[in-house]
Amino acid sequence: MKIDISYGSGGKQTSNLINDIFLKNFDNEVLNRLEDAAVLDIKGRIAYTTDSFVVTPMFFKGGNIGKLAICGTVNDLSMMGAEPRYLTAGFIIEAGADSEVIEQIAHTMKIAAEEAGVKIVAGDTKVIEGNGNVYINTSGVGEILKEGISIQNCREQDVILLSGNLGEHHAAIMSERMGIENNIASDCAPLFSIVSDLLENKINIRCMRDVTRGGLATVLNEVSESSKCRVEIEEPSLPVSDEVKGFCNILGLDPLYMANEGKMIAVVPPEQAEKALEIMRNNHYGANAAIIGRITKGTGVSMTTVLGGNRMVDILYGEGLPRIC
Amino acid sequence: MKIDISYGSGGKQTSNLINDIFLKNFDNEVLNRLEDAAVLDIKGRIAYTTDSFVVTPMFFKGGNIGKLAICGTVNDLSMMGAEPRYLTAGFIIEAGADSEVIEQIAHTMKIAAEEAGVKIVAGDTKVIEGNGNVYINTSGVGEILKEGISIQNCREQDVILLSGNLGEHHAAIMSERMGIENNIASDCAPLFSIVSDLLENKINIRCMRDVTRGGLATVLNEVSESSKCRVEIEEPSLPVSDEVKGFCNILGLDPLYMANEGKMIAVVPPEQAEKALEIMRNNHYGANAAIIGRITKGTGVSMTTVLGGNRMVDILYGEGLPRIC
Repeated sequence: MKIDISYGSGGKQTSNLINDIFLKNFDNEVLNRLEDAAVLDIKGRIAYTTDSFVVTPMFFKGGNIGKLAICGTVNDLSMMGAEPRYLTAGFIIEAGADSEVIEQIAHTMKIAAEEAGVKIVAGDTKVIEGNGNVYINTSGVGEILKEGISIQNCREQDVILLSGNLGEHHAAIMSERMGIENNIASDCAPLFSIVSDLLENKINIRCMRDVTRGGLATVLNEVSESSKCRVEIEEPSLPVSDEVKGFCNILGLDPLYMANEGKMIAVVPPEQAEKALEIMRNNHYGANAAIIGRITKGTGVSMTTVLGGNRMVDILYGEGLPRIC
Repeated sequence: MKIDISYGSGGKQTSNLINDIFLKNFDNEVLNRLEDAAVLDIKGRIAYTTDSFVVTPMFFKGGNIGKLAICGTVNDLSMMGAEPRYLTAGFIIEAGADSEVIEQIAHTMKIAAEEAGVKIVAGDTKVIEGNGNVYINTSGVGEILKEGISIQNCREQDVILLSGNLGEHHAAIMSERMGIENNIASDCAPLFSIVSDLLENKINIRCMRDVTRGGLATVLNEVSESSKCRVEIEEPSLPVSDEVKGFCNILGLDPLYMANEGKMIAVVPPEQAEKALEIMRNNHYGANAAIIGRITKGTGVSMTTVLGGNRMVDILYGEGLPRIC
């Protein structure tokens, strides 16, 4: 069934769309009440975030826009040391979208939300003219498990860990667009279990960030700027799969600037670095984790290259890959 | 300055857009930290909601898409008896949008948020191909002031109040689209002050709903269905301005199905109805409030017409006015 503009009216068709697809998949006692707002019990301090998703194509190896929309927001909450609890989902649907496609996206969201331990408690649906694209905004609320984790918090000598291989989401999306056949799948994943493992093992995390749009280079520059420090990384330590390396070589891409959707950095005190690395590697989503550098005095991000040289790593300029997430 | 697709990269241009427009206007100590998620202090139970806005045209008499995005979410929280506290804002910007237009929208949001007493604590910006449209998702968190206000909560003999004139937002948008010159302005407004006045005066509110897409007819049908009751309204009691009446007559529109953005219904016990009406009328945004009907035994929504007849009022079928909010 094709969605037409009448499905955005707020009347009978909107109601059918919501009942037949969204309520069926997101079913829970809070959402089902269909009030103007969900009412929640939250203890203590909360983390609160939002993200919109416009990825094209909507389906790709390793996931789809719905999985991204859950994982992206779950990860933003996790990075603040919060346990993700509740999500909202706002759909902007272009007329011409197939209801089965929306159903597939919603079903993926259901599964991803279950894995991440979150409930979708409020939603909204709008329909605009267009070519059948679907845009999703999710917001999320989580309960802070540990205070003081902040991008402003890194100190000299701290060690930087990266949870796994770079560039896979970026390469997967690009492969889909260019019609390149390969085995590269998006790394899209919920990262709370890594955070939870680190916190349970009393790692004194200074700062965490998921490495998304703009890539590792951009995230590390944000750390440098916010914590007023220099970030030094070692190129040989950066984990990149052989297949992504090959992909980058052919297309002239730099994994430092490529987007990921299931990777994070954690900055930890030097004496806990090895223990944190072991914890990450024991987690399914951190199997290829590595220590990639450290915090020093100064400004900017510098990298010791494979050839032993040293260069400054700037933030991403220009367009990167549009609509990567 | 025209926004191009590179402003969605997550790199330098995205950062400029965020700094120059959004941070400047939404400035507050939580947002300014630029963490992956905002950290908030909330006591007790919270209301949580989301809404996306795709209205066209983006600017109209009485407001713009930014004012809608603040008021819509503030109103959804208010309807649950919550004091709106924190909002997130997600922007999906079509390439070709003028940065001055985005600036104007953001500035309106700043002013509307100030009036509503909310802070925008997290945000997101994406850029897609297109013709310069801007879509906004807001989510909101509020603190529940009074428990148990629910659309499932209406009881026989309860009285239904409407906070003012119907159809103004709908007529304003339609006038803009059709190039009709008149003085009809959107009623877009934050409704928390009405809710707060009712609660402070110990009105035992059963249920509130803002009357948006789908119009009063759709909202009353939702009440009937959720509270398992009949809703009986009196057509002569429905407040509609002369100018909107004229507009409806010419175009064959029914104010019952027209969208509003600053109107609400409140269902209250019969013995408090007159007091509640007086409270509403004393509020700037409730000056034309009226008692429009009551809850009885049965199902559906029935209306005694101006001519003394009686008819059932159904939910909106079909497209209403696309992209009204």
